[in-house]
Amino acid sequence: MSFGPATKGVYPIAATPFHPDGALDLDGVDRLTDFYQEAGATGMTILGIMGEAQKLEPEEAAAIARRVIARARVPVVVGASAPGFAAMRRLAREAMEAGAAGVMLAPAPHLRSDEQIAAWFAQAVEAIGPDVPWALQDYPLTLSVILSVPMIARLMAEHPSCVMLKAEDWPGLEKISALRRLQAEGRLRPFSILTANGGLFLDLEHGRGADGAMTGYAFPDMLVELMDLHGKGEKEAAHDLFDAHLPLIRYEQQPGVGLSARKYVLMRRGVIACDVQRRPGPPLSAAARAEVDHLLRRLARKDGRAAF
Amino acid sequence: MSFGPATKGVYPIAATPFHPDGALDLDGVDRLTDFYQEAGATGMTILGIMGEAQKLEPEEAAAIARRVIARARVPVVVGASAPGFAAMRRLAREAMEAGAAGVMLAPAPHLRSDEQIAAWFAQAVEAIGPDVPWALQDYPLTLSVILSVPMIARLMAEHPSCVMLKAEDWPGLEKISALRRLQAEGRLRPFSILTANGGLFLDLEHGRGADGAMTGYAFPDMLVELMDLHGKGEKEAAHDLFDAHLPLIRYEQQPGVGLSARKYVLMRRGVIACDVQRRPGPPLSAAARAEVDHLLRRLARKDGRAAF
Amino acid sequence: MSFGPATKGVYPIAATPFHPDGALDLDGVDRLTDFYQEAGATGMTILGIMGEAQKLEPEEAAAIARRVIARARVPVVVGASAPGFAAMRRLAREAMEAGAAGVMLAPAPHLRSDEQIAAWFAQAVEAIGPDVPWALQDYPLTLSVILSVPMIARLMAEHPSCVMLKAEDWPGLEKISALRRLQAEGRLRPFSILTANGGLFLDLEHGRGADGAMTGYAFPDMLVELMDLHGKGEKEAAHDLFDAHLPLIRYEQQPGVGLSARKYVLMRRGVIACDVQRRPGPPLSAAARAEVDHLLRRLARKDGRAAF
Amino acid sequence: MSFGPATKGVYPIAATPFHPDGALDLDGVDRLTDFYQEAGATGMTILGIMGEAQKLEPEEAAAIARRVIARARVPVVVGASAPGFAAMRRLAREAMEAGAAGVMLAPAPHLRSDEQIAAWFAQAVEAIGPDVPWALQDYPLTLSVILSVPMIARLMAEHPSCVMLKAEDWPGLEKISALRRLQAEGRLRPFSILTANGGLFLDLEHGRGADGAMTGYAFPDMLVELMDLHGKGEKEAAHDLFDAHLPLIRYEQQPGVGLSARKYVLMRRGVIACDVQRRPGPPLSAAARAEVDHLLRRLARKDGRAAF
Repeated sequence: MSFGPATKGVYPIAATPFHPDGALDLDGVDRLTDFYQEAGATGMTILGIMGEAQKLEPEEAAAIARRVIARARVPVVVGASAPGFAAMRRLAREAMEAGAAGVMLAPAPHLRSDEQIAAWFAQAVEAIGPDVPWALQDYPLTLSVILSVPMIARLMAEHPSCVMLKAEDWPGLEKISALRRLQAEGRLRPFSILTANGGLFLDLEHGRGADGAMTGYAFPDMLVELMDLHGKGEKEAAHDLFDAHLPLIRYEQQPGVGLSARKYVLMRRGVIACDVQRRPGPPLSAAARAEVDHLLRRLARKDGRAAF
Repeated sequence: MSFGPATKGVYPIAATPFHPDGALDLDGVDRLTDFYQEAGATGMTILGIMGEAQKLEPEEAAAIARRVIARARVPVVVGASAPGFAAMRRLAREAMEAGAAGVMLAPAPHLRSDEQIAAWFAQAVEAIGPDVPWALQDYPLTLSVILSVPMIARLMAEHPSCVMLKAEDWPGLEKISALRRLQAEGRLRPFSILTANGGLFLDLEHGRGADGAMTGYAFPDMLVELMDLHGKGEKEAAHDLFDAHLPLIRYEQQPGVGLSARKYVLMRRGVIACDVQRRPGPPLSAAARAEVDHLLRRLARKDGRAAF
Repeated sequence: MSFGPATKGVYPIAATPFHPDGALDLDGVDRLTDFYQEAGATGMTILGIMGEAQKLEPEEAAAIARRVIARARVPVVVGASAPGFAAMRRLAREAMEAGAAGVMLAPAPHLRSDEQIAAWFAQAVEAIGPDVPWALQDYPLTLSVILSVPMIARLMAEHPSCVMLKAEDWPGLEKISALRRLQAEGRLRPFSILTANGGLFLDLEHGRGADGAMTGYAFPDMLVELMDLHGKGEKEAAHDLFDAHLPLIRYEQQPGVGLSARKYVLMRRGVIACDVQRRPGPPLSAAARAEVDHLLRRLARKDGRAAF
Repeated sequence: MSFGPATKGVYPIAATPFHPDGALDLDGVDRLTDFYQEAGATGMTILGIMGEAQKLEPEEAAAIARRVIARARVPVVVGASAPGFAAMRRLAREAMEAGAAGVMLAPAPHLRSDEQIAAWFAQAVEAIGPDVPWALQDYPLTLSVILSVPMIARLMAEHPSCVMLKAEDWPGLEKISALRRLQAEGRLRPFSILTANGGLFLDLEHGRGADGAMTGYAFPDMLVELMDLHGKGEKEAAHDLFDAHLPLIRYEQQPGVGLSARKYVLMRRGVIACDVQRRPGPPLSAAARAEVDHLLRRLARKDGRAAF
């Protein structure tokens, strides 16, 4: 149940609920925390990009972290990416003092060469402290930073406190295989790989060596079931379950508007009271709501969780 | 059957077949041309990004254009994007003289502001000639150029010879609706919208006002059937067909390696003899081939076209 | 002496002094404030990119703003760019309550199309309040956002509270001319244009219609003298003064290391006690210090301010 | 006088002259070839970015290469960068068969990680042939590819046929020092470093270990004299000469319009008949011409080459 190199399972990326006027909904945070745990999550990740962390004031971010950590019975990983190392240090320290299991770091978007990336992470780890466990976010589509396999191997060698890769490169299947091959050959130390990218390749990533999922799809209970089926070797049943959800997974994975769709589904599931994104964030049009409703109706024929 | 603002249907983006040593396979070009037509395509688009146009020598590109145009009984649109206007002019002129129905233009990747984009297209249209019909490619994920709705409206106003939008922004559903709304209000002249993006949202784009598909998915016969079902109003049957193909559609839509998967499927369908991409292009690993085979086996249960 | 559309003169971009351990040097902030005023500055700009604002914690930024505003007898403009609108709102409100003359806004680096830019500034102005005067920073080299002439004209039309353009596009001379032409034709309301870009084109920008300088060159007293010479029509004397400083101006304008050189010159001039940038920031090598010393010695032959 | 790892001196980047209607001016190519040689150039580089290579048709590029190589009595390096390896191979082969001393390769703009860069150059060298000497262009400002010091060292180790670095990173002084340090320590094989970036730091690059200049400044005769002064140890005289030219060097180094200014100066010097850039390229406004004239008049007081 800890957060470490052997971690397996599902760490949902938590949404952040807001009231219609954009104010933080801390009661909604509680309900979401309970929801993810009742879904069977082995941990939680908060204050990520999907959690709209970049739109929060520092006090709000700290308040969410304290609230979730106090309530959750599973490990909580806190997104600590910030434009400057001073802000990163403070956020990481506050999270760890409140009882977080670790933090997540995403490379700053301006980084290009391997040297720049290595220097930046050296400073980031110095800022948060070398004893704080962390997950490395590899998400080039949004972060526009390319982490090659040798670069990830180098970061893992230079930073023993990195215990997990949040894998969301696209395409990313060969990358998982390449990292697992290096580990099998004894040329790379063990670490956990949880995959994200909205879950779009979750049916295939287990076969490549992934340990589970770290994504915010609005049916985390399905993600847990999928991992269980994979774990029990029920491959075709896992594919059937995944394929039923794929039309909605694909819809939620759209940049920007996908999060609005995701919050809308969470609202329809009764988890949060309001599906609004804090500004700037695209509202969901009537046409889009109708599309999501339609996808949910079709899903409900195969998965009762979508019937409400 | 012409290429114009009222065009509807399926214009497959043609792959370019190579021999194992990277040499052009012109017999394969013939077979592909026949295959797309037998699939029911209303037209064809050649020498696009998916056709590996950027890896061809000018003589090779011209040879392919002449070969396809001479053989096809449907309109052929030729990708005329080139780093310089001189090369663009020559390619467009050669294609039109050979009998092409029109050309496709993608904005140069360095363009940022609306002014830069407008100036670039003014020069491009001057280069190809204002009488040559063309399709505007809106593909920010690969081209890194953002065409807003007002920008597209401006280009359509300034260039009467533009008859079609190849819509592959992501997310892109609201954009189609916004353009159709402007047309309904009489503030934008009519033009055809064919969608691409690997077909990942084809189940929903018809409802937003798209006229068809311009994408290279390895089952163009399915695209044609899907359009027919949409046209007949058989919405649920269309969704069932689409959902059955979505796992493979999603796999083929991966950047780079997706084209290798697509050529592999075309090879397994017996259309081309060799699935190699000309260098630089990622080969398909054994694990990836196994994944595609698996997805095809699962698809074959619902669609006999995948059984071979 | 106010900050408005008729503002002329020199608004130095203030450096932020740190102690060798990276801690904020508030006494140094006082000395810098005095230095800029004694140099004849008509105003000051604090917490810009050159002020290492992105490396400060929110409390530090607020402390600097209060300190400078309390001490300065000239208008103080406060950089209010922040990754989110919540943080921007707070910083702007705190600055204005402390007595700032206005704020400076730089577009977020991810903005591309004119629509995106217009929407972003609409939200930014709503966040800071439509009554707060602000300067628009046009700095594509670092911000990677292109503001065309029509785009700037649109922002000026939509936001009466924008009173100034900080012009640091590169090349930028034709842009100044184009904006002044629109104003002369009555198609654009008046606003102040102060130029930056390290001062690299200050000898020519006055002739294009610029009102002065907003840059951090380590000899703000020279900038003031240059503006005076331009104002008096002593064109050749102005060029002679500028040309004498150009080798150092060019050196300080280098990205990253240029700020280290600038702080080193400010230290050698006795203004700040320590030339260190807060991390991450490149230290000045021994070779670079020798080059700056050499450039200063050569400058001292023509300008006594460089003799120390 | 050959093109190899011990090359020193000045390799002007040649402009490409066009007639007012945009047609290639091959007589102008002859005059330019003579001009660069009479200026004392030790070699020439043609078909670079400054030579507007990306606007030429393949036949035009080949015609220029043959013309210059046949006429020049100094080594000629031919820019062989092309969007695809097929085009690169052909251009390099044609150039070498015509008698070129070698080629210049610039990394493709989409490259980000060290792995991508290494793989791309491996394919490029395979394309041109491992026996063809080449210069590596390091120009991140325009190419948007970051080559770190370890990355350059790796490329030099993997490709013995690379004999020269065209150094135009910005800032770039520390990079030259770092590479020379690795060579002094025996950890990097020898290669020539010629600097570019419009010559903006030519006064300091010799002291860092550069071997000369590879840039297109319109006074290549000044560049030759500067190198001679550096070679003779007349440091202050070299600085005086450089400082006199710096205002114009800075003007010519502007992206886009700087080349128009450069061609205008070459026209005023009587070398080319027409200063037009092939489209798309910004024309020089009347104000800009007046500025260049003014800078030339001021320069003429110190350097008779500018008096005409």
